[in-house]
Amino acid sequence: MIPDDTTILSAAERIKDHIHRTPVLNSRTLDQLTGVRIFLKCENFQKAGAFKFRGATNSVLSLTESEVINGVCTHSSGNHAQALALAARNRGIPAYIVMPETSSRVKIDAVRGYGGIITFCKPTLAAREETLQEILRKTHATEVHPYNAHRTIVGQATAALELIQDAGPLDVIMAPVGGGGLLSGTALAAHYFSPGTKVIAAEPAMADDAYRSFYSGQLVPSLHPKTIADGLLTSLGSLTYPIIREHVHRIITVSEESIIGAMHFVWERLKIIIEPSSAVPVAALMDNAKKKDPDGLLILGSRVGVILSGGNVDLSKLPW
Amino acid sequence: MIPDDTTILSAAERIKDHIHRTPVLNSRTLDQLTGVRIFLKCENFQKAGAFKFRGATNSVLSLTESEVINGVCTHSSGNHAQALALAARNRGIPAYIVMPETSSRVKIDAVRGYGGIITFCKPTLAAREETLQEILRKTHATEVHPYNAHRTIVGQATAALELIQDAGPLDVIMAPVGGGGLLSGTALAAHYFSPGTKVIAAEPAMADDAYRSFYSGQLVPSLHPKTIADGLLTSLGSLTYPIIREHVHRIITVSEESIIGAMHFVWERLKIIIEPSSAVPVAALMDNAKKKDPDGLLILGSRVGVILSGGNVDLSKLPW
Repeated sequence: MIPDDTTILSAAERIKDHIHRTPVLNSRTLDQLTGVRIFLKCENFQKAGAFKFRGATNSVLSLTESEVINGVCTHSSGNHAQALALAARNRGIPAYIVMPETSSRVKIDAVRGYGGIITFCKPTLAAREETLQEILRKTHATEVHPYNAHRTIVGQATAALELIQDAGPLDVIMAPVGGGGLLSGTALAAHYFSPGTKVIAAEPAMADDAYRSFYSGQLVPSLHPKTIADGLLTSLGSLTYPIIREHVHRIITVSEESIIGAMHFVWERLKIIIEPSSAVPVAALMDNAKKKDPDGLLILGSRVGVILSGGNVDLSKLPW
Repeated sequence: MIPDDTTILSAAERIKDHIHRTPVLNSRTLDQLTGVRIFLKCENFQKAGAFKFRGATNSVLSLTESEVINGVCTHSSGNHAQALALAARNRGIPAYIVMPETSSRVKIDAVRGYGGIITFCKPTLAAREETLQEILRKTHATEVHPYNAHRTIVGQATAALELIQDAGPLDVIMAPVGGGGLLSGTALAAHYFSPGTKVIAAEPAMADDAYRSFYSGQLVPSLHPKTIADGLLTSLGSLTYPIIREHVHRIITVSEESIIGAMHFVWERLKIIIEPSSAVPVAALMDNAKKKDPDGLLILGSRVGVILSGGNVDLSKLPW
């Protein structure tokens, strides 16, 4: 059953003293370049550097008394790992994180810095899941899925809820899509709290499983995704896909070149650090300004909210 | 005569619809690292990317009717050039900018992007001043000095004024020092509007003319300065020095390594882009946490405002 409006409002209430209510920024320069009026929800300023902390915190705070003693676990090499480690530490419980042994030093250090207990595995999905099962057997910890779980989805929905509350009426909200946790949460928040707002997703063309699933009507996995937007490599899940099918208006794909260009523009002109995944919807808007918008939504003067999903970047490996 | 409090308040009123009232940010991570409670005044988000836009705008808006028709001019290769070009364009008048022919492409493009009319010269101070005199003769434009002018100083003072208004009581305000426009303005704002607040300057050890002038009691020029903080290469001026002598509490010098470390930390953890000059006071606070504070001001729980002076960085030339 798809989460209802009160479930999202309860999550917002549950996590509000634990998260940052991130600012909504405007940029005249970006407005001029894209032709629309943009409201940037800055989850790059969220604790642990990404929106993932919302879903992780909601999940950790939703644990029952019997669950909480054994802690939480997940497999992730990215923002979800850091977010879960920090959310668990904030509740004083262990977080067991399965990470591929090929993970970057920066990511390993960040998870350790938040007190996560790391188990390394071979860099395959099979090895990750097997290792996680082993940890579950040993620790009886509760698995917190990075996107395919309702507690996670409603946590992520609170970013769009705040954006709707703070930005005033919006014609469109845009979010990137990987596993679909952020996008499905965003779509539900718009549906319940701003029904006139259309949700448009942006996805790297080089990892376009959501695009293909959305338009074919069949959930297809991400095969050999290869994008700089490393938060968007995963495939949609069984819970996120139906919500996206029902409540998302459109999915736009963008090239790697556009993603890097948008990221560079935001760093250089807005002076904020966003990771490549955050640049994906910005790239879609910058591309859109160069051609005729197919459905008349992203047009001159439209009010467009954009969720900047995170700001975790390895500063020693920049794409320019 | 040193500008009085009403001159600063008038400048604030004059420029308020033209500038960004930049946010004041906190960071628990930075507080933990430094031991003090930090309030970051984010002039990196100012128009044209630095506090310089305040002084430039105040200067341009203060021009008399007879002055305004001939426009403004300056010699600068940095943030002041961009700031003056934009401030002039906003008032619809020409800005003649003398730049060394060795200026980076990024800086030249930025000045041109704001409509500045550039004249290139040899990269020596003599050539810059000679070229400027020639332009003054030809155009009868009004020179807007980057720091050694009261209109500039009171414009820069408005950053600290806003910080005082927005952050609540502060024990200390820190600012970087180059030519001393920002520092003298900050010191005046604290003196008039928050007399209990001490102003502490931070300066690169490799460009320590303000430190040497302050403690020797004699205005000494910057000889062969060589620092990554390229906004702080200039020497104090005849107007900024006396204000600094009278109203600044202390000057701390920092190493190049500390500046780069502080800049990297702010980028990585706070997710905002600051230029090396902005990192100088942050570096002083990070250094200070490692040793005994000599005068008991920068101690556990002190409330310390820091002016992040700007965010203009060539992203293709990062120091790590």
